[in-house]
Amino acid sequence: MVNFKVIKKAKNSQARLGVLKTSHGLVETPALVPVATQAVVKTLTAEEVKETKSQILICNTYYLHLRPGEDVVAKVGGLHQFMNWRGPLMTDSGGFQVFSLGFGKDFGVGKILKERRKEEIGYGQQPKLLKITDRGVVFRSLLDGKKTFLGPKESIKIQEKLRADIIFAFDECTSPIADYKYTKKSLERTHQWAIKSLETLNFKPKTQSLFGIVQGGRYKDLRIESAKFIGALPFDGFGIGGEFGADKKKMIQMLNWTTKELPVDKPRHLLGIGYLEDIPKIIKTGIDLFDCNVPTHYARRGVAFTSQGELDLSKTRFLKDKAPLDKKCSCSVCQNYSRAYIAHLFRAKEITALKLLTFHNLYFFNAFVEKIREKIKNGKLS
Amino acid sequence: MVNFKVIKKAKNSQARLGVLKTSHGLVETPALVPVATQAVVKTLTAEEVKETKSQILICNTYYLHLRPGEDVVAKVGGLHQFMNWRGPLMTDSGGFQVFSLGFGKDFGVGKILKERRKEEIGYGQQPKLLKITDRGVVFRSLLDGKKTFLGPKESIKIQEKLRADIIFAFDECTSPIADYKYTKKSLERTHQWAIKSLETLNFKPKTQSLFGIVQGGRYKDLRIESAKFIGALPFDGFGIGGEFGADKKKMIQMLNWTTKELPVDKPRHLLGIGYLEDIPKIIKTGIDLFDCNVPTHYARRGVAFTSQGELDLSKTRFLKDKAPLDKKCSCSVCQNYSRAYIAHLFRAKEITALKLLTFHNLYFFNAFVEKIREKIKNGKLS
Repeated sequence: MVNFKVIKKAKNSQARLGVLKTSHGLVETPALVPVATQAVVKTLTAEEVKETKSQILICNTYYLHLRPGEDVVAKVGGLHQFMNWRGPLMTDSGGFQVFSLGFGKDFGVGKILKERRKEEIGYGQQPKLLKITDRGVVFRSLLDGKKTFLGPKESIKIQEKLRADIIFAFDECTSPIADYKYTKKSLERTHQWAIKSLETLNFKPKTQSLFGIVQGGRYKDLRIESAKFIGALPFDGFGIGGEFGADKKKMIQMLNWTTKELPVDKPRHLLGIGYLEDIPKIIKTGIDLFDCNVPTHYARRGVAFTSQGELDLSKTRFLKDKAPLDKKCSCSVCQNYSRAYIAHLFRAKEITALKLLTFHNLYFFNAFVEKIREKIKNGKLS
Repeated sequence: MVNFKVIKKAKNSQARLGVLKTSHGLVETPALVPVATQAVVKTLTAEEVKETKSQILICNTYYLHLRPGEDVVAKVGGLHQFMNWRGPLMTDSGGFQVFSLGFGKDFGVGKILKERRKEEIGYGQQPKLLKITDRGVVFRSLLDGKKTFLGPKESIKIQEKLRADIIFAFDECTSPIADYKYTKKSLERTHQWAIKSLETLNFKPKTQSLFGIVQGGRYKDLRIESAKFIGALPFDGFGIGGEFGADKKKMIQMLNWTTKELPVDKPRHLLGIGYLEDIPKIIKTGIDLFDCNVPTHYARRGVAFTSQGELDLSKTRFLKDKAPLDKKCSCSVCQNYSRAYIAHLFRAKEITALKLLTFHNLYFFNAFVEKIREKIKNGKLS
């Protein structure tokens, strides 16, 4: 069971410093939650992830259900044992895959999010590869075409076997281009699934904590309605899922409205959002945890985050650059390797390049969030 | 400069225990020399390679010349600095690529070595992609088709810039299917190149040691002739290159004949050979060092070497196997991860699988050779 304590609140925002206590250790919040979809932070070992100052990871229920299957993980003793990550651990519910493998697949997640398609998805419309009903979602496996049914009950049962410290209620993460009616009807469904998820969790003695998920798309009234509804249920914490529209300013506004409706004494987790420049703003809306694949995903494309901005290590000019990725960074990669070497490895298609960049980026993000915690502590977050 | 001392000789074989002193530390011999072709042991960082008990690495002159180029490496301060490997380091000369990118490419290295083609390559015959003359070899770059000329002088000049502790004379590694006349003529050329390599090395003060290379293919008289010729030149040590025919027994016999002709007080390095089962036999012929990509290459194919034999982690049955790769192995992978987890990562195409397997295999090989050193020390190598 998690136990959450707000230690200090910022003066000019909703930002708060907290400690989340789990049976696998503490998480100082606000905190980045690195993504370990298939029970691994891509390219790294668990020992390395720990060295990047990462405190808690999030694995994916849907993907682990497909491969290797929750029974395999359970047999080895649960995810902590399986992946040798002895710290706090989350599993998301598979709800995001209702979007990413549904309308996200049909129209392209990138196109929807970046190009802001104009057409809207209306109520009654179904994605090509999934079937969404009030009971749950039929997925067609990307691996072998096999059909998989995930509903609130199924998701919780799988997550019980995976044994993460924090698990999430099953939801429908709606598409950012779903129209009002679709989003409203979907939200009703997500709320029913939240209740069903709570009813399903019957682990005795209770060692896992369940977070409910607020949805509502880009509609203010639905977000507030959802935060009120989910916030009133006996969850141990709350996820905020989905997307808030194209405008980042609006996103922050919407987050502010949402968190205001949630109980102050319980942790809030923002699902799948965390570009570097957004992190301080997100934290100021009162978010305690957020998972994001930006540091790891960009690393595998050759991009390093530094105090001087992003560096694209695939560029030839870095072959002559003896400097570390970031002179101000104290990670072991920056202590030991030059941009020239990492650029060489990346161009030579050496796996080690991806690993060095992933390590650095995670460390950089974690150090970045650590500094924000310091600022909240010292009353200096402006 | 290297300094080599034979500490103990075995009673029933030519095996010997030695210490090779370099300006970057000691190597206890016999020793495996892991392959770091492009200035990296594939999938690992230098720190990890050290943890696998690896003592000395070998990089590739030809590939580093192509990418990133010796000037890039020199600018960063040489290979040690570039790749953050602070221990002893070798570079091979590019001579092996005369085979692998020449007749090896034409007929398939695997086919030549495993299927033992019957046709022979005769004197005057040229591979499709290279041109071999008495001056050196014109390579056509695999990266961009650009022509590169490597002769003894060029190879040494590149190796001087790379700054490994031990460098090799440029040679022609003949194809295992070259006929007697081809091999004999090629050997004369390799011997002339050995002299030229010695003449070229003008590093002042001399910080690099130069090893000559014995060739002679599968012909006993040529091997002995080459060992006598190269052995009489003022090299700091000796490489033994090429292949000795299909029969492993014959290989060992030939190695015995060869090492007997070489000065006893200088180190001998067997180039590119080291299947696990061959290692004890090779060592008994008086070989001190040998480089081999078996542990690392097999790891990337999902194969783990263990005290119980080879395991193919791509097999589904390992998903249910809670045991470590090798119960008797004390490497950090075997302390922390199960076969089930590594099999899952390998099937899920996670890079971390390749890294865990590479780490284990290197450790396993190094521990294997360490035990042989112990046996020589205790007079128990039978």
